[in-house]
Amino acid sequence: MNEKELTRLLRGVRGGKLTIDEAVAKLRALPFEDLGYAKVDHHRELRTGFPEVVYCAGKTTRQVIEIARCIAVRHHVALCTRCTPEVYAAAAEAFPQVTYHEAARVMVVGKPPKPSARAKPIAVVTAGTADVPVAEEAAITAETMGCRVERIYDVGVAGLHRLLVHREQLEQAEVIVVVAGMEGALASVVGGLVSAPVIAVPTSVGYGASFQGLAALLTMLNSCASGVTVVNIDNGFGAGYFAALLVKRKR
Amino acid sequence: MNEKELTRLLRGVRGGKLTIDEAVAKLRALPFEDLGYAKVDHHRELRTGFPEVVYCAGKTTRQVIEIARCIAVRHHVALCTRCTPEVYAAAAEAFPQVTYHEAARVMVVGKPPKPSARAKPIAVVTAGTADVPVAEEAAITAETMGCRVERIYDVGVAGLHRLLVHREQLEQAEVIVVVAGMEGALASVVGGLVSAPVIAVPTSVGYGASFQGLAALLTMLNSCASGVTVVNIDNGFGAGYFAALLVKRKR
Amino acid sequence: MNEKELTRLLRGVRGGKLTIDEAVAKLRALPFEDLGYAKVDHHRELRTGFPEVVYCAGKTTRQVIEIARCIAVRHHVALCTRCTPEVYAAAAEAFPQVTYHEAARVMVVGKPPKPSARAKPIAVVTAGTADVPVAEEAAITAETMGCRVERIYDVGVAGLHRLLVHREQLEQAEVIVVVAGMEGALASVVGGLVSAPVIAVPTSVGYGASFQGLAALLTMLNSCASGVTVVNIDNGFGAGYFAALLVKRKR
Amino acid sequence: MNEKELTRLLRGVRGGKLTIDEAVAKLRALPFEDLGYAKVDHHRELRTGFPEVVYCAGKTTRQVIEIARCIAVRHHVALCTRCTPEVYAAAAEAFPQVTYHEAARVMVVGKPPKPSARAKPIAVVTAGTADVPVAEEAAITAETMGCRVERIYDVGVAGLHRLLVHREQLEQAEVIVVVAGMEGALASVVGGLVSAPVIAVPTSVGYGASFQGLAALLTMLNSCASGVTVVNIDNGFGAGYFAALLVKRKR
Amino acid sequence: MNEKELTRLLRGVRGGKLTIDEAVAKLRALPFEDLGYAKVDHHRELRTGFPEVVYCAGKTTRQVIEIARCIAVRHHVALCTRCTPEVYAAAAEAFPQVTYHEAARVMVVGKPPKPSARAKPIAVVTAGTADVPVAEEAAITAETMGCRVERIYDVGVAGLHRLLVHREQLEQAEVIVVVAGMEGALASVVGGLVSAPVIAVPTSVGYGASFQGLAALLTMLNSCASGVTVVNIDNGFGAGYFAALLVKRKR
Amino acid sequence: MNEKELTRLLRGVRGGKLTIDEAVAKLRALPFEDLGYAKVDHHRELRTGFPEVVYCAGKTTRQVIEIARCIAVRHHVALCTRCTPEVYAAAAEAFPQVTYHEAARVMVVGKPPKPSARAKPIAVVTAGTADVPVAEEAAITAETMGCRVERIYDVGVAGLHRLLVHREQLEQAEVIVVVAGMEGALASVVGGLVSAPVIAVPTSVGYGASFQGLAALLTMLNSCASGVTVVNIDNGFGAGYFAALLVKRKR
Amino acid sequence: MNEKELTRLLRGVRGGKLTIDEAVAKLRALPFEDLGYAKVDHHRELRTGFPEVVYCAGKTTRQVIEIARCIAVRHHVALCTRCTPEVYAAAAEAFPQVTYHEAARVMVVGKPPKPSARAKPIAVVTAGTADVPVAEEAAITAETMGCRVERIYDVGVAGLHRLLVHREQLEQAEVIVVVAGMEGALASVVGGLVSAPVIAVPTSVGYGASFQGLAALLTMLNSCASGVTVVNIDNGFGAGYFAALLVKRKR
Amino acid sequence: MNEKELTRLLRGVRGGKLTIDEAVAKLRALPFEDLGYAKVDHHRELRTGFPEVVYCAGKTTRQVIEIARCIAVRHHVALCTRCTPEVYAAAAEAFPQVTYHEAARVMVVGKPPKPSARAKPIAVVTAGTADVPVAEEAAITAETMGCRVERIYDVGVAGLHRLLVHREQLEQAEVIVVVAGMEGALASVVGGLVSAPVIAVPTSVGYGASFQGLAALLTMLNSCASGVTVVNIDNGFGAGYFAALLVKRKR
Repeated sequence: MNEKELTRLLRGVRGGKLTIDEAVAKLRALPFEDLGYAKVDHHRELRTGFPEVVYCAGKTTRQVIEIARCIAVRHHVALCTRCTPEVYAAAAEAFPQVTYHEAARVMVVGKPPKPSARAKPIAVVTAGTADVPVAEEAAITAETMGCRVERIYDVGVAGLHRLLVHREQLEQAEVIVVVAGMEGALASVVGGLVSAPVIAVPTSVGYGASFQGLAALLTMLNSCASGVTVVNIDNGFGAGYFAALLVKRKR
Repeated sequence: MNEKELTRLLRGVRGGKLTIDEAVAKLRALPFEDLGYAKVDHHRELRTGFPEVVYCAGKTTRQVIEIARCIAVRHHVALCTRCTPEVYAAAAEAFPQVTYHEAARVMVVGKPPKPSARAKPIAVVTAGTADVPVAEEAAITAETMGCRVERIYDVGVAGLHRLLVHREQLEQAEVIVVVAGMEGALASVVGGLVSAPVIAVPTSVGYGASFQGLAALLTMLNSCASGVTVVNIDNGFGAGYFAALLVKRKR
Repeated sequence: MNEKELTRLLRGVRGGKLTIDEAVAKLRALPFEDLGYAKVDHHRELRTGFPEVVYCAGKTTRQVIEIARCIAVRHHVALCTRCTPEVYAAAAEAFPQVTYHEAARVMVVGKPPKPSARAKPIAVVTAGTADVPVAEEAAITAETMGCRVERIYDVGVAGLHRLLVHREQLEQAEVIVVVAGMEGALASVVGGLVSAPVIAVPTSVGYGASFQGLAALLTMLNSCASGVTVVNIDNGFGAGYFAALLVKRKR
Repeated sequence: MNEKELTRLLRGVRGGKLTIDEAVAKLRALPFEDLGYAKVDHHRELRTGFPEVVYCAGKTTRQVIEIARCIAVRHHVALCTRCTPEVYAAAAEAFPQVTYHEAARVMVVGKPPKPSARAKPIAVVTAGTADVPVAEEAAITAETMGCRVERIYDVGVAGLHRLLVHREQLEQAEVIVVVAGMEGALASVVGGLVSAPVIAVPTSVGYGASFQGLAALLTMLNSCASGVTVVNIDNGFGAGYFAALLVKRKR
Repeated sequence: MNEKELTRLLRGVRGGKLTIDEAVAKLRALPFEDLGYAKVDHHRELRTGFPEVVYCAGKTTRQVIEIARCIAVRHHVALCTRCTPEVYAAAAEAFPQVTYHEAARVMVVGKPPKPSARAKPIAVVTAGTADVPVAEEAAITAETMGCRVERIYDVGVAGLHRLLVHREQLEQAEVIVVVAGMEGALASVVGGLVSAPVIAVPTSVGYGASFQGLAALLTMLNSCASGVTVVNIDNGFGAGYFAALLVKRKR
Repeated sequence: MNEKELTRLLRGVRGGKLTIDEAVAKLRALPFEDLGYAKVDHHRELRTGFPEVVYCAGKTTRQVIEIARCIAVRHHVALCTRCTPEVYAAAAEAFPQVTYHEAARVMVVGKPPKPSARAKPIAVVTAGTADVPVAEEAAITAETMGCRVERIYDVGVAGLHRLLVHREQLEQAEVIVVVAGMEGALASVVGGLVSAPVIAVPTSVGYGASFQGLAALLTMLNSCASGVTVVNIDNGFGAGYFAALLVKRKR
Repeated sequence: MNEKELTRLLRGVRGGKLTIDEAVAKLRALPFEDLGYAKVDHHRELRTGFPEVVYCAGKTTRQVIEIARCIAVRHHVALCTRCTPEVYAAAAEAFPQVTYHEAARVMVVGKPPKPSARAKPIAVVTAGTADVPVAEEAAITAETMGCRVERIYDVGVAGLHRLLVHREQLEQAEVIVVVAGMEGALASVVGGLVSAPVIAVPTSVGYGASFQGLAALLTMLNSCASGVTVVNIDNGFGAGYFAALLVKRKR
Repeated sequence: MNEKELTRLLRGVRGGKLTIDEAVAKLRALPFEDLGYAKVDHHRELRTGFPEVVYCAGKTTRQVIEIARCIAVRHHVALCTRCTPEVYAAAAEAFPQVTYHEAARVMVVGKPPKPSARAKPIAVVTAGTADVPVAEEAAITAETMGCRVERIYDVGVAGLHRLLVHREQLEQAEVIVVVAGMEGALASVVGGLVSAPVIAVPTSVGYGASFQGLAALLTMLNSCASGVTVVNIDNGFGAGYFAALLVKRKR
């Protein structure tokens, strides 16, 4: 509630259009719905441009479905990440329209917007085949938020020419999500090649001294290429969301 | 044994009321019960205000039940944390009065005291739905120790207004237990909002660079808000116990 | 601003006692003072019971003095932690009343309240002589906040009888601050001996595998004694503040 | 060199406009200048939108000046980060136009572009006063790249109202750089309040379990707010550069 | 494509032997095969002396088999590491010639070259019996690349004479792969005994403070013996590959 | 082979009692038995006072049995640690005399020596009930090596009086093994109470910031009590072996 | 105070030989001397066999001298570790008899006992020359406690024959202290060679991935040789003390 | 001493050419020189192909000079790493022929061999200018061991074309040493481009989450390119030595 709305509200009080109780209610009322174990934040779409997203890990099937319903009713679409096939099976019975992206472990309840054909695409790039699930989480998230995505998979630095052949495609992207485990060097190489901003996603792919993604994370944080920022290990959702934010704000 | 009691005992010896053997026994005897694999500390209620609590992890079902019995017999109530449903199933046959709090993994043998209506409540607050089990461990612990608890769940900083609406409720608490995983920022925000002391409990909720709760732990230890102390990751029991200690000492 | 005050303000608007501009100002105005590089939070005393404290590290001498003046003018006393002798030297010329506690690196501008004689004291305990500076930071903080402090120094577990002789004194404290470096075992031992709540402060005293206080920190977080919470390494201020909060709320 | 340019070059060869040697030279020649100890990358402005930046740490004064000259000659402006006053003193004699930003440790050789008045500003926000140097590195970087910057300093979560008063200003930023040490919670709180993308910069401000910025880094990587990405500890430059990239691509 | 080939290609264009479209295709075309989820790098044999190796972890059975087929068709042999018995079972039906090395978890599709009898062997040495699987991965890799391997297992430093008896055999090796978990001291001892280069492979064998191989890794990186380099924890493949590279380059 | 034996051997050569071939064989021959995957070190009993011990983890059942047989044949007794019930089941059929200590996961093949009644006992002490399996590994190891062991279990510092009552018993031990998880403070407390040398064994008992025993390990390494040394996390065998070594050397 | 002394004291009370006040005093009085900042533990010699040792780090010169005097007066000798030349300079004026061991940073006030010629020596072994200061701390400590020490320096595993030549000398030691930085492999090698118990001291000698001694510490904790225990990084004192304890208890 | 020499020695004994005492001496005598604080290993040149190298850190000037003299006398050249200008100044007076490489902190006493013109060179590559000192340590080491070195500096992945232009030069190297700090991605990129073996040297260049070289170390250990091994952080010497070993063994 900004100053202008506040002035209008107070004028309404003085002019008698609003009772004091009504004004108190307006000032106090906050747009969330309380399910006891969860407080669904309906205000978030206004505040951040996209409705609350359901992070399914650590929630029961019943909780996920109730929260998703609560969001989909008001916002047309509910994005559910880290979603198991079991939860999807239950959701498939509960909702008329629901899609499950198995590799990405993402469930979409309701109908996501059509991507705008005019906007430049988001490129989602992986170093290896094993990084694809995290990349898909990013891609599906961005698509559900109405963006166009181009997937360029398995172009890690051990065979640099595989990446170089996609150079032009990378240059034409609005923003690039680079998903890589093991040593995570791909983010720096892409960041050094093109002018688009790069969102780097370290993955837990690897073994031994990869320490479940720590190696890739540190690599990306220390990138000598300048236009690179980083999200949490395996956080495809965060990267896809941030990329979509950039595309949508530009329009 | 303080100086006064010592003086009295020695007077008894001089006056012949106590034989030397009796005095030696009194001075040596210490109030615990030896089960071989465990030494149940009956003195603890006197010393710290609450009987010994059974930490079930790493103990066999038989051991938990024997220790719990040993405590409940002398102290009316035995609190068992990290308790599996299997142990409860066996306990349900062994004891006439036993309650199991599934989410909290807490079993209570015997009859806990009624909470005092006059005392201010303890507020137990979580950042998300996945933090609820740890929060419940804190809440049940405090209730079993005779305190009143108010639960405020899923008010993390990604939707700050959900927290702000509970501000008054927080202000009226005697002490606040803040339970949060991922980045654990809620403890600092609550600590900056209200004057009540805050006990912060990092949880292992999260993935990747949360490193099983390390991220939330470090956040809470570095809190820029002043009235915040921290317990171990997922240690709902410790926070609930400490909070109850503050409430009970105040009375 | 709670609901009651809001109702009163709105009544003032309707009754014409308050112009709309005045009301907007009141609703918008927030009690801090903007020095450009710092926003002094005058609201904090109301909100948390004690005025903002100046953490001197990373601030210039001029900044510390301006912020301290800004606080002392409205709240009578300004507590400055991690304060160098150089800053004190400048402050001694700037303020009529200023005290410097060298070991604790704490400067107090203005006149702290007298401790209440009726309240039970806070015990501040150290494992070794090298832990004394951190302990003094805790003690001076609590004293500046109007509490009585009893110092029990150099009673580490390598000579347990040195601690046991102070048992009664510990029992009579309202709350105990335990300051220990190296292996930090003292917090558990004190927590197991007495019923008072224990605030544990790990210190960076030690070498090698103490890893600048990490060893003591982990020890204290894993304490098998129940009434123990922990603050950051070397954070004497935080422990003293929390302890004082407990004492003051009790009154 | 894209496909179109390649076709044109090959046509030139067939048409005899280009000798084979010339074509080989063009295909082989790469736009960098070799100083022996450094290879200045003149191609970078084309490739990434801004000339190479000089990271001064670990370079001799003479090396910095030679590299900066080499860049400034071709690109009008050379940005030098982590620059000591000693290097600046030497540069002041070597270059006709050079500015030194002491807090930020940034030196600008030559004349940066005027910021576009039409573009929305970048907000640079700090949790505390000690975070200002890193924030200034971000701000000066973005300004040198032709962006408008609004500074909002010392609005950490220990006094949330100081932040809330700037809410509208934050909402109007194109992108927000949040600079915070200690527990770094500010990034999540800002990310939860507004819809602008947030670039989080952990700083090494703090002590003990802040582990030179690790605590703030982990906090920010685990942010429960969605539109947040992270750069290296104390990497004000990286955040300013990324933010400027977003602003410039939008135009 | 080196300068010479480039000159020849351009001459072809000028002489009319090559159309411009053909030349563009040649310059653009890069020798990999795109399976969608993977881009098989056929160029690698030329570039690095051995065809691409299939790292099976994180790939589906179908993916492994398709990639292996794609490699074996062009290069006669496909080496598949971290291969489960399940994948082998499917491969056994798909390929006419396939071998599975169970301890090493290595599958070889097609027919590896015969080892040259003249070349000196690679010695593969383990500290204990539990290190054998990693050692076998190294040995099979080197054998598949056409090298002779001598296995010397269970000669850890707790019984130094077991190693000393093999001294001459070690001296005659071209290169020595030392595989050790727990404290990993064997690499230093071997490095100090003989003049052959040593490739050290830390293994995750051990418990407690071995931290899944970290202890052995650090030991090996800090080796006081000079001719020792290190690969990732449990990376038998990497060590075998590097060793084979040395042997093959020497011929 | 010491100098004296060497002289005798050389005299034998000169005197013709030994052929040169025999002498070479003697000098070269080293007393181990080669099973291919393992080299059983029969020399160890001479060298270190006890035959080689079988660490079962990472070995197949068949390997354990063959190695154990190979040791038992020459040395009368074979101690097998980290032994599963499955291995024991197979061993029970393979050997006439074999004992399995389930809690300790220790199997003893053959007949261990009787403990000497005259020697002072080894005290094995635990902080909690969950530490008992590691303690039993220590105790069984020492007993199999012919020592007398006194078990004092569940005397952690949260109830110090439980420990103090055993003070005399501790004083009479030749050496004390202290087994503790969580914060591991018991080692320091015991080390400060008595004059016997203390072998501290951190265990992985605990959760959260115990980091699988790291907390207890660091505590024990930083012990402020002087006569304390430390072995690996959960290494009951190592502590029992070292303790037995001290007892046996003393005789 | 053991049971026997207690019985005698109580008999004295009954018999009137002791007044009640005297008995209370005896029971209460604990043998330490309170200097305010330090409580000197005079009881320690009785309890642990050697008077309290002064760890100088973190103490002022005046504090060290007062504590040392306090100890030397009652126990004839005071051992001061981590002692700077400055403290020694002051001590040289304060005490009639004081020795400073510069490499070891150890000061001895008063007159240490003569080593017994009959007892077997302690061997102190280093891997390199840079480990000598820590080794000297161990050696001087043991000598001050009345033991004979043999120094064997610079025999690290990079040149194993340097160690093997000292084999007999090592075999004849009562206990061996092995001091090593970098990879710390020497402890395992010595432990595998001889039957004497080994006290391993990791040092902070090294760089990079030695992480200030962490690498050597982990190596030693994971030693595959059985008779090895470990003390803190650079803790020469602890190793020397423990070794002396073993020697003295044997007599 | 191998079997053949042993046979000859024993024949000498039987034939009377050698007295028994002489034979014992020969068998016992080991070729090192004992300076008390150091045992100079003259046998190392035979054993490992190059005389012992002096690691100067932690040694006094006098010690370095004595050890270097001792080596140079017998082996013509002594290589001294981590050597300060102060030590060099003293050495310049002590030795007739001595060279100091300032950037590399390497001192060479005596006359190193001429590099063989026929052998292929070692390429030493750095990512940035700040990595040059470590690279020079590698280069000087290899040159002192008689190898030819080509330096390719400042070709990090942020400007990939700078590296690609050197591709042919890299292909012609016998072995490539890649020196890189920050994210260390260069090793993987070089490893993927060429067939020569790559020795990767992480450097401590960087800040924040580079953690003094840990990030680069992990990157290199997890390299997805196959022919890459790794040495310790900043260990230019180790990489140069290993590279020279490969070149020399090939001849």
